[in-house]
Parts: sequence; C-alpha cells; structure tokens
Amino acid sequence: MNRSPLILVTNDDGMHAGGMEALISLARQFGDVVAISSREPMSGMSHAITIKVPLRVKLVSEEPGLTRYVCNGTPVDGVKLVFNSLSEHKPDLLLSGINHGSNSSSSVLYSGTMAAAMEGAVNHIPSIGFSLLDYDPKADFTACVPYAEEVITYVLERGLPDGICLNVNIPALSSEKIKGIRICSQANGYWKEEFEKRTDPTGSEYYWLTGFFHNREPENGGTGTDEWALKNGYVSVVPISTDLTAYGVLEQMKSLELAQTGKHE
Amino acid sequence: MNRSPLILVTNDDGMHAGGMEALISLARQFGDVVAISSREPMSGMSHAITIKVPLRVKLVSEEPGLTRYVCNGTPVDGVKLVFNSLSEHKPDLLLSGINHGSNSSSSVLYSGTMAAAMEGAVNHIPSIGFSLLDYDPKADFTACVPYAEEVITYVLERGLPDGICLNVNIPALSSEKIKGIRICSQANGYWKEEFEKRTDPTGSEYYWLTGFFHNREPENGGTGTDEWALKNGYVSVVPISTDLTAYGVLEQMKSLELAQTGKHE
Repeated sequence: MNRSPLILVTNDDGMHAGGMEALISLARQFGDVVAISSREPMSGMSHAITIKVPLRVKLVSEEPGLTRYVCNGTPVDGVKLVFNSLSEHKPDLLLSGINHGSNSSSSVLYSGTMAAAMEGAVNHIPSIGFSLLDYDPKADFTACVPYAEEVITYVLERGLPDGICLNVNIPALSSEKIKGIRICSQANGYWKEEFEKRTDPTGSEYYWLTGFFHNREPENGGTGTDEWALKNGYVSVVPISTDLTAYGVLEQMKSLELAQTGKHE
Repeated sequence: MNRSPLILVTNDDGMHAGGMEALISLARQFGDVVAISSREPMSGMSHAITIKVPLRVKLVSEEPGLTRYVCNGTPVDGVKLVFNSLSEHKPDLLLSGINHGSNSSSSVLYSGTMAAAMEGAVNHIPSIGFSLLDYDPKADFTACVPYAEEVITYVLERGLPDGICLNVNIPALSSEKIKGIRICSQANGYWKEEFEKRTDPTGSEYYWLTGFFHNREPENGGTGTDEWALKNGYVSVVPISTDLTAYGVLEQMKSLELAQTGKHE
C-alpha cells in the first residue's frame, strides 16, 4: 500500500478508559488511527447491535494520524459505522481494548471487546482483541505493551485467515514475571451462581448479576487452554472463528436429515 | 428420569410474539414448560448480559405444565435467571424462538434467539434455536411444527454433545413445499451498506441500521451451507459450537509463541 496502515481502535469500556488510551498510543506507532468508542461503558454487550434507536456519532478530535469518534451505540455498532460511513478507506487492522478485565474461556461470548474484533473478522479485516486481567479503572497497562506489539507486528506482517480474529489475554503481572506468549484453545468453563437477590425499599425483589467462573478443564491438565496459560504467567492468544459450525458433528447428525427427508420423498 | 422432561422456552421477540406461543404449544407435547421472555423485543441483542441495572422478574401465569415469567433483561439474562434462581430443577431441554426472521449464516452472531440457545449449551443443556424466514409479526408457524417436532424428538432421544446447540432455520413455505431437513455448515456471509444517514428536525445527523446480506459462497456451489439449503426449500440445521477456537490454525500460529518466548528464556 502507498499509505500508512489505517488502524481502527475500539473498546467496550467507554471513551475515557485507560486501556483504550494505551492501545491508541501503541497503534500510532504502526499507522494512522481512527478510534471509536461508546459514550458509556458497554461491558457484557457481546455482539449486540442497535436497531430501535437512531445512532448518533460525534467527531471528538482530529489531528494528523488520529481521528476520534464517540457514538451512542454498542462496540459492534461503532465498528460497523467506521466500515460503512466514517472512513474513506477500509481499515487494514482492527484493535479492540485493552479491556479492563479478562475475556478468556467462555467470557469471549459476552465480551463487547471481542465482539468488535469478531465483527472485523466477519468483514475480512485482521482483528485483535486485547484484555488485561485487572478490572481496576486505573490499571497499569505498561506490561501489556511489548506483548501487544509482538502480536500486532505478527498480524501486520502475515495477516490472519479470513473470518478468524485473535483473543489476547494478558496476566496482571510485571513485565519480568510474564513468561511469554502461548497459542491456546478456549478453556471449557462457565459462570456459576450468578444472581444476588435483593429487596428494594418498596418491598419488590430484584437481582444483580454476579457469580464466579468455573473452569471445567482438569486441574493439572488443560495445558493448551487460555486459563492454564494465564494462571501460569503466560499471555494467552486464542484464534477465534466467526464460523460457529461444529464441523466435528456434522456427519454423526446426518441421521436427522435422512429421517425427515424420508417422509417427503 | 421420574418426572416429565422440564423444557425451558425462551425467545428474543418479546412476550407477545406468535413464534413463542407456537413453540410453547409444541414444547408442552414433550414435557413441563417454564417460559421466560423479555418484556420488550430484543432482536439483535446477541449474547448481551445486563450488568448496570437490576433485573426484575414477574411471574405471569402458573398452570399445570406451564409456568411463565417475564423479565426486563436480555434473552441470555432470562436463561441465566431460570438456571440459577427460578427453577427447582435444571431444565432437560432449552428451546428458543420461533424467531420471526432468519438467523442463518453470520446472523447467528447478532441473534438473541441463538445466544439463548448457546447459553444453554455452555451450561450443558441440550438447546435448539428455531427461526422462520418471515419477519411478519403475524407469520404463520404451522409449517414449522412437524420439522421442529422432528428435531426436538431427535435431541430428546440422543442428546447433543456438550457445548454444542442447534441453529434451525425454516423457509417461509407451505408444509408441502418444504423438501426436508439438511444438516449444514454456516454460510460465509456478511451484512453490507448498513447505515441510512438522516437529518433530524434540529439539523443533527443520525443513522439507522439497515443494509442487506451478502453471501460469499459460490452461486452454484456451497451445497452444504444453510443459505443453500434455505434457498432450495430445505430446513437448515447447523450444529453451533460455543468453543470458538479456530483449531485449524493453532499449529501455524506457533511461530508467534516461539518468537516471544525466545526473548524471555
């Protein structure tokens, strides 16, 4: 290409998140940045899109190499707005995050950060979601930088297969204590005991979402999973497919097809 | 089991949707039903969960074999509420839909109907999402019934592998014109030109989400995809994995791992 790479940066923690600032700074080393975030934090919004209310976009600032927008939609809305309406060129790379908190294992399903990256992959743009295992709004992203640089360099040089993005989680450790990068599978886990029931001042019951993550992988096994890598001081990189087909079971399910078509032929 | 199967029925079109009524009627033939839906339609909410506002649940009605709830959350919130707080037993089966409109190809990523089914699969409950290719609120679900019965019977008899649910789409055709069931992969496609820009009475610009689906599969090929099946008069059944790992590329990405760890060892 004759121009610098155009890098779309987004997140799900809102426009003032420290993780997004860290990622914008990093992205500017690699090319021109167009950044979009939601006005409000959008954790847990997954791949939601806004259908019922109009989307509004505000140009926040414009300087050489960095244009910033904010919108009233979800992370996926923001990505779609850049792809379709806000950018003259299709971005060469999409970076999402750095999320304040983990998106490993099945948390990838609920994550707005990772949904933004998956939306990039659906549109055949190399896309990476970054998360630091620290929910503190004032988390220190310094240790993330060399690992994020490594992953970004890899993706800019080699690209990613169409429809596949990366879910990068970084342990909340100092640079010296992080042991390196591991290419992982998504650990088999889920969230348990997820609601706290309370009574409001008028006597009505309500629930707050809460709970804790349960890893189904064996205690001393699962060395290939993201949960194992993170617990053992590694940065986990899971290649994520936007084709959700469970190819391994297609053949065994054919009997359902035969049973039904038998009635009709 | 000593009791009738307990079937959780949910949807993303709200508590008054005809497709949900059709699915509840059908589910009652197979067991006891606990139904939960969102107060408002929640199309396009994907796997979103509600973190920032308290969840409220209302018992709508209770009769032998059918208990109905409504909540102010998303489809996935509703499923989690039943799993964690509203039902004494873990459901034996989760049915979501029947959605008013298609959830084939990459639409699975945005769908609240399919997210509810995926949430079931994450919790190791056999789960099926049903969608009819007719967005009409008054759509006729009669032709869906024998196909949905066939799929439900199959799943109740054989179960589904842990972590895998089914995405069932049904063409908007009469019973006689539907040719049967096809086990399919998710077609490779995406949504294009997705925004309509307008100006409000105060002169401010806003966007409505719109656009059209573009199928990347070859015109006369792709016989194994859901899009092909639906266009050719078949009910499509795609087994959907909640493990998003792109296993096919793990090996080829190992060089990223070696490069980084090389710096640290």
